[in-house]
Amino acid sequence: MDSQLDGIFYPQSVAVVGATATPGKIGFMLMASLLEGGYPGQVYPVNPGQPALFGRPAYPSLSAIPGPVDLAIISIPAALTIPVVKEAIAKEVKGIILVSGGFSEVGTDTGRNMQAELRELAKSSRTIIIGPNTLGVANPMFNFNGTFQTTFKLLKPGKVAVVAQSGGMCTHIVHALTDHNVGISKCMSLGNRVGLDFNEVIEYLGQDEETGVIALYIEGLDHPRDLLAAARVVVKKKPVVALKSGRGAGLEHATLSHTGALAGSYRIYQAAFKQNGIIMADTVTALIDYLKALSYQPPAPGNRVAIISVQAGPGIVTADQCREKGLALAQFSPETKSLLRQKISLLNSVDNPVDAAWVSTQPGDCREVLDAVLADPGVDAVIVASVFLEANMGLMWALTETTDCKKKPVVVCLDSPGMIAQKEIMALENRGFPVFSLPDRVVTGLAGLVRYGEIVRA
Amino acid sequence: MDSQLDGIFYPQSVAVVGATATPGKIGFMLMASLLEGGYPGQVYPVNPGQPALFGRPAYPSLSAIPGPVDLAIISIPAALTIPVVKEAIAKEVKGIILVSGGFSEVGTDTGRNMQAELRELAKSSRTIIIGPNTLGVANPMFNFNGTFQTTFKLLKPGKVAVVAQSGGMCTHIVHALTDHNVGISKCMSLGNRVGLDFNEVIEYLGQDEETGVIALYIEGLDHPRDLLAAARVVVKKKPVVALKSGRGAGLEHATLSHTGALAGSYRIYQAAFKQNGIIMADTVTALIDYLKALSYQPPAPGNRVAIISVQAGPGIVTADQCREKGLALAQFSPETKSLLRQKISLLNSVDNPVDAAWVSTQPGDCREVLDAVLADPGVDAVIVASVFLEANMGLMWALTETTDCKKKPVVVCLDSPGMIAQKEIMALENRGFPVFSLPDRVVTGLAGLVRYGEIVRA
Repeated sequence: MDSQLDGIFYPQSVAVVGATATPGKIGFMLMASLLEGGYPGQVYPVNPGQPALFGRPAYPSLSAIPGPVDLAIISIPAALTIPVVKEAIAKEVKGIILVSGGFSEVGTDTGRNMQAELRELAKSSRTIIIGPNTLGVANPMFNFNGTFQTTFKLLKPGKVAVVAQSGGMCTHIVHALTDHNVGISKCMSLGNRVGLDFNEVIEYLGQDEETGVIALYIEGLDHPRDLLAAARVVVKKKPVVALKSGRGAGLEHATLSHTGALAGSYRIYQAAFKQNGIIMADTVTALIDYLKALSYQPPAPGNRVAIISVQAGPGIVTADQCREKGLALAQFSPETKSLLRQKISLLNSVDNPVDAAWVSTQPGDCREVLDAVLADPGVDAVIVASVFLEANMGLMWALTETTDCKKKPVVVCLDSPGMIAQKEIMALENRGFPVFSLPDRVVTGLAGLVRYGEIVRA
Repeated sequence: MDSQLDGIFYPQSVAVVGATATPGKIGFMLMASLLEGGYPGQVYPVNPGQPALFGRPAYPSLSAIPGPVDLAIISIPAALTIPVVKEAIAKEVKGIILVSGGFSEVGTDTGRNMQAELRELAKSSRTIIIGPNTLGVANPMFNFNGTFQTTFKLLKPGKVAVVAQSGGMCTHIVHALTDHNVGISKCMSLGNRVGLDFNEVIEYLGQDEETGVIALYIEGLDHPRDLLAAARVVVKKKPVVALKSGRGAGLEHATLSHTGALAGSYRIYQAAFKQNGIIMADTVTALIDYLKALSYQPPAPGNRVAIISVQAGPGIVTADQCREKGLALAQFSPETKSLLRQKISLLNSVDNPVDAAWVSTQPGDCREVLDAVLADPGVDAVIVASVFLEANMGLMWALTETTDCKKKPVVVCLDSPGMIAQKEIMALENRGFPVFSLPDRVVTGLAGLVRYGEIVRA
């Protein structure tokens, strides 16, 4: 199985059935994605009406392509797909990405029957069929964009894998991760799942060395227990975070699939996912915050948080949010308090949240404050929070040089109007400290690290 | 009273007591803020040890300045402030911004006594004292940055006024608004509030023609009923949105003020604010989303939301969020459904959420779809949601030309990895449609417009 999925994520050659020179068409965007993305393998456009496309020879059919093809991406009307899928299987392609829509999701007998036939074809062959009704697959590390979303050339290679039932939500999530400076290892839209479902992809990504965090977007499941079983094995090794939609009654008409045993009961999903060590995100924003924190920092050994802020207000707001998200405010040891009292003005608090206002211009002092708080046995994690002001940036530079923060997560809240703090943010994130611009979002990120710590220790 | 506050927001001349040429000092940043911000009035640095500062004559004292001074900004050690405040009052300045800290917030008898003396001075004179322990005041429309936060030169003039107890949170909020393309009419940090409190500023801003939305950041109140009474009068004319911090027991040591009658009981605040028509934000993120929507769009006539998405997934996720935030999914009339059925592929839903996938490349058809949904009497507000794809942008351009959306709010969710949709986002926001990058955040924004509609109609 694994080697077959390698053929999809690292194909040596790709054929695009339905390739066209007409801008705006899916078959155009599929070609543009491969070529603009710098895909290193062979690309074969397939279109019976064209001798050449995108400056390369085009082929009338898959079987007319000389030599082997690893992956066939198919975007043609639904009614024409079955013979082409059979042809691809006969050519022994490793995988098929069936972009075409018009199957069970339209609710007609024809659609359902065609989908049933695809399912049989998938079952009876070694070829993996992704979709139908899928956006496709991308692997930024391999410069491979096998989707019609040409923007995926912007993705940064990284640790987060995204597996989404919906192509639109796959796109939304990876776009948002890109905007939050979070890299992607692989992403995939499953669509109608005739031949490949969540559990198989989770198993594969669990073994994948390039993937450190797995994100799932789920609308409805036919076999929820398979997903839970696959996740249970993986979650001790790498975090699995899920967003479930289609939560309320009356939204069934809108979900792409609504035949799952658990569909419609969000509470049952929440309970089952929690029990199996999957972190549940309620919103896309929370999903992004969890993924960002988990891709940058280690799980927290406990839930006792120290907050070091510049100016009291941001510290208080952050402390409120910690409490509301189930995190505790750490109590400092007498040793820590005494060191803080030496460094910090009598005008400011050395209790948690610490207001480092008057040391914030002194990187050396800042570093001592940070190191002392990190070394305190009563502290499990640290939030550093500040608004941008030139004079506050000493604290941020000190953090990039702080010594011992491999075992306790450190996350940062720093705003950057007009990208004014871009230099500091890049320095922090290059050193592994994720930066969030709003206080509640840094706390959500940290709550993900605390939750994952509990899962690992459970 | 109003004319006195005009003297603070539109001063003709400003003296900076404690001005210095030493970078990193507050007295340096105060001067830099005024000069870099392009302040059009007279600036008088006051420092007894310097004949000149920033290329202009410096004065040994306030009284040595020839001619009148509207506003004195004071940043000197606490122990030296009382005589300077007296001198400013004698010079008949309209306002004093007392940046210096070291009063009641440090918890010493000396600090408390000095603060009591300041309060008496404020009470017995016509001069308004802001602070002590304040960041200051800014009015971007007037190019006036009377704070030590030099970044406020980046603020865009606009409709939102921000009044914050904490300088750090004032900064955090206006920075975030700036990053979300929301303009500021005025902003102010109240600090320890010896001479000016929320109620007086709310009254002033209620009359202020440049202010369309009022944001409050509150830690603790001495006179909560005064604030509620002032807000009650204003909320029918313009929305008031509040974020309250210091919510839990045990955070009192960290709040700048904790003598308020209602301090410590967040539930009581929530109930009282709601009863008086103040919109409560639980997080800074929600505050920003409310303010953005309220500054761009009219209040909603009801809570029935239509969602027009490209691709089903983003529509479903948005619908989930609507429900969880108390909004209802609109039921379309037969006329609307029939028009949608003509325009939209049989592959896609014309129920709410509408999937406009296959019309998204046709601005003319998109416009008809948008106009039909807006005209439906069962629809109170519209969310347009899409990921960025060149082919989807027809929907966004159609929206910029949509005719009738003055009475029903329209808000947009559009992502923009690497700023790729910057052109479309600017076009939408210039036409008055606020753009949010994440589905739950567009729904939060709309929920603010629905809530404000209820307040206006109550």
